[in-house]
Amino acid sequence: MGLLDVFRSNRNKGSASVAKERLQILVAHDRAFRNRPSYLPKLQQEILEVIRKYVEVDLDAVSVNYEQDDEQEFLELNIVLPDAAGRG
Amino acid sequence: MGLLDVFRSNRNKGSASVAKERLQILVAHDRAFRNRPSYLPKLQQEILEVIRKYVEVDLDAVSVNYEQDDEQEFLELNIVLPDAAGRG
Repeated sequence: MGLLDVFRSNRNKGSASVAKERLQILVAHDRAFRNRPSYLPKLQQEILEVIRKYVEVDLDAVSVNYEQDDEQEFLELNIVLPDAAGRG
Repeated sequence: MGLLDVFRSNRNKGSASVAKERLQILVAHDRAFRNRPSYLPKLQQEILEVIRKYVEVDLDAVSVNYEQDDEQEFLELNIVLPDAAGRG
């Protein structure tokens, strides 16, 4: 796919010195049937709720980027996780 | 971030002539605390369950790629959605 390589190459761009846990989620949807309403904005909320079962997520630390055009739509969630204290 | 650009550029690689809906999900986790067990394999199942609320997903059509190293882990889900018939 090549996309994992992109994630890997991002590792060395300014993040090496920061001891933060970060979680990044990307959803890409190729839509063959373009007249159907998108469910990605709703999906975003549900994915966040699932993640919050596993790690403490401060909603202020979630940045969301949603884009769409005729053929595809993209949802990007970037989450900076708080320090490990208090997490099970 | 630049990652959306990667998704976009993938659009033209062999998929233009195929009228299939595809959903791709990538989760990347930079782990500052590496001694904690990963929750991504469990997260994978829950994300799939959330998606199945919105679209019919044939589990045979889901390919999963999970990789980890010392600093990061990656979860990649590639889903080919069935034809629109039967979906609400």
